[in-house]
Amino acid sequence: MFESLPGFREFYPDQCAVRNHIFKHWKKAAISHSFSEYDVPILEPLDLYIEKSGEEIIGQLFNFKDKGGRDVALRPELTPSLARLIATRAASLKKPLKWFCIGENFRYERPQKGRLRSHYQLNADIFGELGASADAELIALCIRALTIFGLKADDFVIRLSDRNIWVDYLAHFGINDKQSIEVLAVIDKLEREDREHSLKKLKTYFGKGTEDVFEKIETLISLRTLEDFRSFILSQSLVDSNRCKIEARLVEWEKLFDHFNALQLTPYIQIDFGIVRGLAYYTGFVFEAFEKSGKFRSLAGGGRYDHLVEKLGGPKLSATGFGMGDVTLTDLLNEKELLPHINGTTSIYVIIGGEVERVKALTSISYLRGQGYAVDYSFKNISYGKQFKLANQSGAQLALIYGAKEVSENKVKIHDLSTGCESELPDNELKFELKRYFEK
Amino acid sequence: MFESLPGFREFYPDQCAVRNHIFKHWKKAAISHSFSEYDVPILEPLDLYIEKSGEEIIGQLFNFKDKGGRDVALRPELTPSLARLIATRAASLKKPLKWFCIGENFRYERPQKGRLRSHYQLNADIFGELGASADAELIALCIRALTIFGLKADDFVIRLSDRNIWVDYLAHFGINDKQSIEVLAVIDKLEREDREHSLKKLKTYFGKGTEDVFEKIETLISLRTLEDFRSFILSQSLVDSNRCKIEARLVEWEKLFDHFNALQLTPYIQIDFGIVRGLAYYTGFVFEAFEKSGKFRSLAGGGRYDHLVEKLGGPKLSATGFGMGDVTLTDLLNEKELLPHINGTTSIYVIIGGEVERVKALTSISYLRGQGYAVDYSFKNISYGKQFKLANQSGAQLALIYGAKEVSENKVKIHDLSTGCESELPDNELKFELKRYFEK
Repeated sequence: MFESLPGFREFYPDQCAVRNHIFKHWKKAAISHSFSEYDVPILEPLDLYIEKSGEEIIGQLFNFKDKGGRDVALRPELTPSLARLIATRAASLKKPLKWFCIGENFRYERPQKGRLRSHYQLNADIFGELGASADAELIALCIRALTIFGLKADDFVIRLSDRNIWVDYLAHFGINDKQSIEVLAVIDKLEREDREHSLKKLKTYFGKGTEDVFEKIETLISLRTLEDFRSFILSQSLVDSNRCKIEARLVEWEKLFDHFNALQLTPYIQIDFGIVRGLAYYTGFVFEAFEKSGKFRSLAGGGRYDHLVEKLGGPKLSATGFGMGDVTLTDLLNEKELLPHINGTTSIYVIIGGEVERVKALTSISYLRGQGYAVDYSFKNISYGKQFKLANQSGAQLALIYGAKEVSENKVKIHDLSTGCESELPDNELKFELKRYFEK
Repeated sequence: MFESLPGFREFYPDQCAVRNHIFKHWKKAAISHSFSEYDVPILEPLDLYIEKSGEEIIGQLFNFKDKGGRDVALRPELTPSLARLIATRAASLKKPLKWFCIGENFRYERPQKGRLRSHYQLNADIFGELGASADAELIALCIRALTIFGLKADDFVIRLSDRNIWVDYLAHFGINDKQSIEVLAVIDKLEREDREHSLKKLKTYFGKGTEDVFEKIETLISLRTLEDFRSFILSQSLVDSNRCKIEARLVEWEKLFDHFNALQLTPYIQIDFGIVRGLAYYTGFVFEAFEKSGKFRSLAGGGRYDHLVEKLGGPKLSATGFGMGDVTLTDLLNEKELLPHINGTTSIYVIIGGEVERVKALTSISYLRGQGYAVDYSFKNISYGKQFKLANQSGAQLALIYGAKEVSENKVKIHDLSTGCESELPDNELKFELKRYFEK
């Protein structure tokens, strides 16, 4: 028998129910924040990803030539396709836009815990609003997309940082914009890499003063309050233009925290300049959501990318967004026992006396299904005992019994599968009785 | 700016809402029939499709070598993956199984009306029940997956046929099982191809008697009742073993129609031996759903495939299933004006007096979102007039107003956006008032 490919998942009904539980609640969270759902193709021109991320990205892609000779790739992320959608209709779409998508992404990498070759992501983005109010709204949704499952401020934290502050601070050491992208890629890995190794990599940029700069970087990363950050900046001999830029950013940080306070989200937020997001295109606020014990990978990550739409050929349009994957989240919800036990979707099981009663039973089944009830029954004529067993296994709340006696009297017996209570009523009153029962 | 690939769709929010409407109702129909949802990978080993459909299938696939040297393909259909799922756990899964999936399929073919390179399908299958009761259940779901959108018996028809009867009837002319697959592929195309062309193709099998056999085939295809079919068979000089087999099938047909009568589905069914389903693996009842005027492609198609699970390496397990695509269905619902006009998902728009009132408003917004309401507001401080305009555009039913006066008195103003009615109430009564309003 053929196996599925490594890093790809099959979803048997019990697993599919868990996945649907995640999707349903992500969607509920996004809609409660008035985000609109969109979707983009699974397969896209390869150039779309090269333009955004450079040739290196190809190594991680499922890419190939299609039968028309086009270079194509399974999408590794949604953002480039989304930027194209927005750019194409930039003139007619009313800003700000708040959009979300729940979709599958693909990466050719070694499958490991929390990282598969295919996974699902909730992506949420806001276009056309430059101010911190949009960042607050986006982060509020990111938090809600976790708390909606029952996760609490004890369970996870949003580590919040600022790429602009990093760039402005690094400028103080003579690092230009292009270099800063490379230096930030090193800083991005500090948590996971050997200190000496990082120091060595930074030497290219800071020369003899590297150890000194590195200590300052470590201090910056250790700061946890805006006050401490303010003191730190005051202690640095920055040139006026850089100081000015950083102070302007501080005003945005204060605005952001005003929003968090009003939204009562402060308990979920931690200032942490250790988060820089490895990718080149981020600008302004960036963040990642982590489980607190540290044993899981990042739950979500995002931030501002105010230049990307323009870079991909669209108009100048500010943007901020995040992605949240399903793999690590599902592992976490499993560990916290926050996933529901889902025992089928059947609500009514119809028990049929025999071939003669089947006609009447099927008519009733057809009617009840039309009313929206999830109704099941046995294809074969089997004993009442066996049918009751199937009824209990199906997870149904009620059994309806169409035996010879009931059918001859135009009646039906209702059997409550949890209490065992039975009552008999005229078939034409069934509708009202079920309504009463299921509205309880 | 990059374009998306030919034959692939982008879904802006208004288009995504239509797609979601289709998915939601398909799912509702499947669950009302107590089918369980599953899912399988988008990317699969190429061999899975070659084993099922032969080497020819490659010409229509998006297939490639992945970076690990595996021959892989984007799935053109769900059935082989599903058969693998079932086969893998055949021993532990309780039969009969009723499973459904709503998923994306891919084919490399020339995009045209009703045929894209990517489309979505509702797939529903029943495993482990050989009798006509399972075919009836499956066809009942197929019909419900169309009527749930408001389509009626005047709009579409299920054309129902029987591959076994065809094979048994063709045997009468000396056609063996292998040849019958080829002959049925010709019969499958009769409706769309020139008569002379079909005749020529059939000559290989029927030689000099082809014209005579062809007339009989045409007669068989023109029959519309079981009685006419019975008379037709009686008029043919069949050998006893073939006659016997066909009569056994007639018993199954009668059982099937008993079910349709009880389920009140007879008005949707038309006997039509012109339907044979081109694929080799079908056995027994086969059917296709068509819009009645004939201007659309097939809406759905399916039938029994009692040998496929075994062929793909699993145990012997009877099966029947259908697939229904979203492209033609959406075109049809559009023409019949059965698609809803969806104007956003926002239910409450919060209007904010100014920066001071924003704190109070945001606290309320955060609370209401937690209660499940879809709440939107302006990121910027703009005039009441502009905010009311945005509120109306959002599609919200209610506006909540937090002006200076309201906030200073711990009150909120409720403005019904459809009637213009306004009322003021203490902020802490808002919850109850909204509950009353939205439960109306």
